[in-house]
This record gives sequence, C-alpha cells and structure tokens, in this order.
Amino acid sequence: MAELTGNLLVAQSGGPTAVINASVAGVIQEAGRHECIEEIYGGLNGILGILNETLIDLNEEKAKAIEGLKHTPAAALGTCRYKIDFKKKPEKAAKDMDRLFEVFQAHNIRFFFYAGGNDSQDTTNKIHQEAVKRGWDMRCIGVPKTIDNDLPHTDHCNGYGSVIKYNAATVMEVACDVGSMATDDGSCCIIEVMGRAAGWIAAGTVLAKRKATDAPHIILLPEIPFEQEKFLARVQATVAELKHCIIVVGEGLKNAAGEEIGVDKTRVDAFGHAVLGGAADRLAEIVQGKLNLKTRTVKLGYAQRAAAHYASATDVAEAVACGETAVRTAVAGKSGYMVKIVRTGNEPYTWTTGIQPLDDIANVEHFLPRDWITEDGFLPNDKFIAYARPLIEGDAHPPSEGGLPKYVVLDRVPVEKQLAPRV
Amino acid sequence: MAELTGNLLVAQSGGPTAVINASVAGVIQEAGRHECIEEIYGGLNGILGILNETLIDLNEEKAKAIEGLKHTPAAALGTCRYKIDFKKKPEKAAKDMDRLFEVFQAHNIRFFFYAGGNDSQDTTNKIHQEAVKRGWDMRCIGVPKTIDNDLPHTDHCNGYGSVIKYNAATVMEVACDVGSMATDDGSCCIIEVMGRAAGWIAAGTVLAKRKATDAPHIILLPEIPFEQEKFLARVQATVAELKHCIIVVGEGLKNAAGEEIGVDKTRVDAFGHAVLGGAADRLAEIVQGKLNLKTRTVKLGYAQRAAAHYASATDVAEAVACGETAVRTAVAGKSGYMVKIVRTGNEPYTWTTGIQPLDDIANVEHFLPRDWITEDGFLPNDKFIAYARPLIEGDAHPPSEGGLPKYVVLDRVPVEKQLAPRV
Repeated sequence: MAELTGNLLVAQSGGPTAVINASVAGVIQEAGRHECIEEIYGGLNGILGILNETLIDLNEEKAKAIEGLKHTPAAALGTCRYKIDFKKKPEKAAKDMDRLFEVFQAHNIRFFFYAGGNDSQDTTNKIHQEAVKRGWDMRCIGVPKTIDNDLPHTDHCNGYGSVIKYNAATVMEVACDVGSMATDDGSCCIIEVMGRAAGWIAAGTVLAKRKATDAPHIILLPEIPFEQEKFLARVQATVAELKHCIIVVGEGLKNAAGEEIGVDKTRVDAFGHAVLGGAADRLAEIVQGKLNLKTRTVKLGYAQRAAAHYASATDVAEAVACGETAVRTAVAGKSGYMVKIVRTGNEPYTWTTGIQPLDDIANVEHFLPRDWITEDGFLPNDKFIAYARPLIEGDAHPPSEGGLPKYVVLDRVPVEKQLAPRV
Repeated sequence: MAELTGNLLVAQSGGPTAVINASVAGVIQEAGRHECIEEIYGGLNGILGILNETLIDLNEEKAKAIEGLKHTPAAALGTCRYKIDFKKKPEKAAKDMDRLFEVFQAHNIRFFFYAGGNDSQDTTNKIHQEAVKRGWDMRCIGVPKTIDNDLPHTDHCNGYGSVIKYNAATVMEVACDVGSMATDDGSCCIIEVMGRAAGWIAAGTVLAKRKATDAPHIILLPEIPFEQEKFLARVQATVAELKHCIIVVGEGLKNAAGEEIGVDKTRVDAFGHAVLGGAADRLAEIVQGKLNLKTRTVKLGYAQRAAAHYASATDVAEAVACGETAVRTAVAGKSGYMVKIVRTGNEPYTWTTGIQPLDDIANVEHFLPRDWITEDGFLPNDKFIAYARPLIEGDAHPPSEGGLPKYVVLDRVPVEKQLAPRV
C-alpha cells in the first residue's frame, strides 16, 4: 500500500472524563512523530464542530499545553451528544454525512480519530464505512472513553479507573465522617454515583473496603433489581452492628419491574435516554420513613467524572497510550478499529494496547458479570476486586498554582474555513 | 504558681473536618514534651464519652498512628452534638456537670482540651467556669475547629482552608466538564455547599476564578437575600455570553423574608437547628422551569468536609500548631481560653497562634463582611480573595496504599473505668 499523506482530525464526544484529554495528547504527540501526517486539527464539540467546520490548528498550541492536557479533565476540544441517526432520521443523517465528507475533503483529512463511548464508536464506524463507500481514503480509529466502562472487548475504558478512584476515596472519607458522629441512634449516608445501565462505577467503590466492616456497606447496582424489604433489613443489621451504614447507589437503580428508582420521566437527553438523578434522595426518604434513621445524601454528579485532582496515574498512562496506538494503527494503514486495553498480567498488573474492529463494538453494552457480585447482590466480590484494584493505582496529581490545579485551556487557533456555512 | 501535675484529656466535638485530627495530633505530641502531663487520654464522642467514662489511652497508640492523624479526616476519637444546656434543661445540665467532674476527678484530669466550633467552645467555657467554682484545678483550652469559619477573634478556623480548597477544585473541574458540553442550547450546573448561616464556604469557591469568565459565575450566599428575578437575569446573561453557567449555593440560602430556600421544616438536629439540604434542587427547578435550561446539580454534602485527599497543607500545619499551643497555654497555667490563628502578614502570608478568652467566643457568630461582597451580591470581592487565597496553599496529600489514602484508625485501648455507670 502506498503511504497515505494528509491531515489529521481528532475530536471528542459524549460525557467528558478525567483523562479524555490525555488520549488527545497521545494522538497529537504521536502524530508529530509521523511525516505522513501534515496538519493536526481538532474538531470543536465533536461531530457538531466538524459539521460546522469549526476546526482548530493543534500545531499552533504550545507543546507545554499539549503536555498539560494529560492532567486536564473534561474535553479541551469540547464535546457533544449529537448522533447521526440513519434509523430514525435517515434524510438528516444522509445530509450530515455529505457535509462531513465535504469538510474532510476540503481540509484533506486522511486520519480521523474520535474519542468516545458507545454512541461515539458507532459514529466512527459509520464514518469509516462511508469513507470506504465514497472511496475517500481516510483512516478512522476510535479511542475508548467512558467512565461507564461499558464498552465490550476492551479490558476496561479510559476514564473508568479515575472515576472509581475518586469515588472510592470519597466513600472512605464520608465513612470517616459519618463513623465519627455515629452514636446509638445510628445514622445512614447514601452516596449516589453515575451509571445508567451498568453498575461498574458503583461497584468500583468497593475498593474503599480494606476490611469487612469498612464502607461501603451496601452497593446498589442497576443490574440487581432493588428489593426494598431486603435492603431495609440489611441497613438495619448494619446499623445494629456498626451504628452507621454507608450506601452507594448507581443512579440507574431499578426495581423488579425495570422501573428506575430515581428517574424523572419528564426529561430525556439528546440520545433519548431518560435523565436520572434522584435515586439517593428517594432511598433516603425510604430509609428515614421506614427505619426512622438520620439519613444524609451525597450526589457527586459531574464532579466525579472530572476529578483530575485525584486521577489514577494508571488511567492517565493508558489513555495516553490509547491515543498513541490510534495514530500508529492509522499510519500502519488500518481503519475501522477501536483501540482497546489488553490486560497481560494481574500480579503485578501489566497491560498493552490492541485493536478491535468497530463492527464488534458499536451499541453493545458490557455489563458487570453476575458472578462478580455476591449472591445477595449487595456487594461486588473478589473477582471484581481483582479486576478493578490495579486500575486506580498511582496518584496523578496535576500541577498546582495558588493551591489549585493548573488546568490547560487551549488557544484554539481556528483553521480557515473553506466551505459555505452549513444550512 | 506551683506546677500542676496530672492527666490530660482531649476530645472532639461537632461536625468533623479534614484537619480536626491534626489538632489532636498536635495536642498529643506537644503533651509528650511536658513532664507535668502524666497520662494522655482521649474522650470518645466528645462530652458524651466523658459522661459515659469511655476514655482511651492515647499513649498506647503507635507514634506512627499519631503522626498519621495529621492526614486522617473526621474525628478519630469520635464526636458528638451533645449540648449541656443550662437554659433549656437546667436540671439535666447540672447533673451532667456533676458527672463530668466525677470523671475528671476519678482520672485526675488536670488538662482538658476540646476541639470544636461555637457550641463546643461554649461547653469548654462552662467546664472551665465550673472547675473554678468547684475548686478543681484544671486547665481548659478550646481548639478552634469548624469548616463554617464562623468563630470570632480567630483569623479563620482550622478546617476552613481545606473545605474551600476542595470545593474550589471541584468547581473548576465541574466547570471544565460543563463547559466542554456547552452548546448553543446552554446549560447550567448548581453546586450546593455547606454553610448554615454564614457564607464563608460558598464564598471560598470564588478562588476557582483565575479570570472573570471562569466559574463560579454566581455564588449565592446565605447573607444576601435571594431575589429570584435578579438571579434568573444573571443566569440568562451568563449563558448568553458563555453558553453555560456554574452556580454555587450555600445550603442556608434565604429569601428576603428570612425563609431558607431548601429547608425541610419537618426536621431539626440535636441543637435545634433546621436540617437543610435542598437549595440546589430547588434552584434547579426554578432555572429549568423559568428559563428552560438544562440544569444539573451536585451536592457534595459530607464529602466536602472530610476530603483529606486534597487538604490544604497550610490548614494542616495550622491545625497541628493550634493543638500544640493549646497544651503550651495550659502548661503555662492558663485556663478558659481558645487558641486562635493570628495573621501576621499577607504577601507572603505569615501567621502565628494566640489565645482569646472563651468568654469572648461562645455563641458569637462571625459573618462574611458585607463589604467583602460585590455590590450586586453575586460574588465575593478582592478583599475576600486576599483573605482566603493563602488558606488553600499547599497540597497535603495523605500517604497512599493501593491507590487510595491510608487513613489511621486508632487502636482505642480503653482506660479502666473507676465509676459506676452513668444513670
């Protein structure tokens, strides 16, 4: 195959994480090592920015800023939840695809990298297939990114290690606090964490346990149908023993009928998913009402997925490597793949990167295996712990300035537009 | 004055902080340097533990564990919200006081240190006065502790620097996240922080701003009556300019009638204070309802006051010094004082410790000065920033084990009881 030469475009999509910028840094730094890659562009706000031809010239950024991306949370290029939906909106999707390729061709984009979760890998795959169909020689590689850890084929997802590290530390600290105040009256604290369908994030807080009596005492996973009586009995038993009970709940907790405990049915996001967020408050009402137990809630929300001040050094290193591998894969002539993380050993933990066809990835959700959860469903077991423990190793402290993290803001030098505005 | 010789008792009270254990470590380590102090006891769960004669022998703890207290959040001795209330319950208070002195005398307690906030300083003062009245020679010194920063006469309170450092970092990170996702539709995120009456904690998040357009864009302080229309106009203007708006709200936000925005009127704590916690959700309803703007909430709750993984090194050093000064003050023959932090310079920030009579302290609340807040009431101004900035300097990372903080749990070797159980 003759070597392909041209420009690179990288963009970010979906919910941000603490390390999605680290992957972009990996892409940019690796791209600089290959002569076949000429310009290095970033698309602002994912696919949306490409549709709008709002590209920035990443070669105009300071090298220090690119290095700083490795410690800067969220999406420095901006992100989006825009979906090219051929099923529901075929005409709009076809029009969008035409426009994307106008932009790719106008800017001679030959290397396209998209960091994101399930929906974003699906988008990358569609663009890859379309490029083949249109005969536009362009290598499209997906970079795995999602705190939800629900992509298949990769051992885990970039961003997951950091979110569970921060959440587990928070559980330890809240437990110190609640335990300090525990008197015979007993008390309860419910910490709500993200996780729409899969309980990976909630499960990860089990790493806070160094001994059986440590918090979290109960983890409510979306995979395990919520049974109120069994739950209340467990809370009561825990408080009887320890005078307090720390509960972690994944926001997507469901009852046996599949109804989400904390859902607000009146709202949906751009992908049509229900907007969640009330599971902890709902559970607090139940505990307080039924057991007459002082109950407080913590809702970490966006704070958990952006907590780069306490990111996992392992996660950062892997995210950078995934970006680098994406570029090497494309330069080697491959397209239509997602980079994946491959675990090569557990004690000590060793890993490498690999690639998987995007056809195997898109819109497949990877759930917590049932046999990684205790029989009673209230905690992940040793299999999960062996899996998750290495992912939080190492504290990736960002550089500090005036007592606070020094996060990078890109200069965002625009690439001159070649096309008429999108209509 | 002949040198007083005897045993020391230290206890912790009120809501925990990230550094209240650092003060206890300061007390214990300093006590070891004075021959007049024989045994070093800790009272479990504050006054409650003293009433119940549940004392532990702190000389039985490993030196490493005492050192580790400097990085361990919450109250390693346990805390309480028990109040000796001579006004409302004079008989019970008198009985409690008799019991406390039975315990002090049975264990020859001659040095008493109590780390806490307003209510706890009041308790320390009452015990001091009672000791004088009863002719029991005992030195009683209060150590300032409260994330609320509302004690008078001290420049600031131990625990405050750490809570605002963590909260400001969280605001920065949430802003990175929300800003990443900001599109023309606009979005809003409301972060609820602690602070019942005084807005010190909410105000502290202003340190996240490095330039005018940085988050937080609006800080709603309990001191400034909430005006819905003015607030909504400000949100709208911010979103028009930046496509997103990050709002911090102190949980005790009130309207012009003095009614708390997020209060649940059906619940009160042991001191009779209303239980708060719904300000962010209430504001989200307002923003979403009136402006049709996607709005999410973060409620840090207990996580903020226990976040030792990102404590202020300045705060830790000051907390240790306050514990040490308490012991030196008592050994020097003084009683009925609270240790205070005295600022001796601002650029560079320098400080020392001093003492203030407890009579000047108890039940006086120290509010954010009005002239430290911008005229429109939406942000603290440069005077506040000059005050608060030094308090968050330095990252006091706790030792790590397996990717998570290594917090100390005391062995808690009990001191043999000398008295019949409390009735």
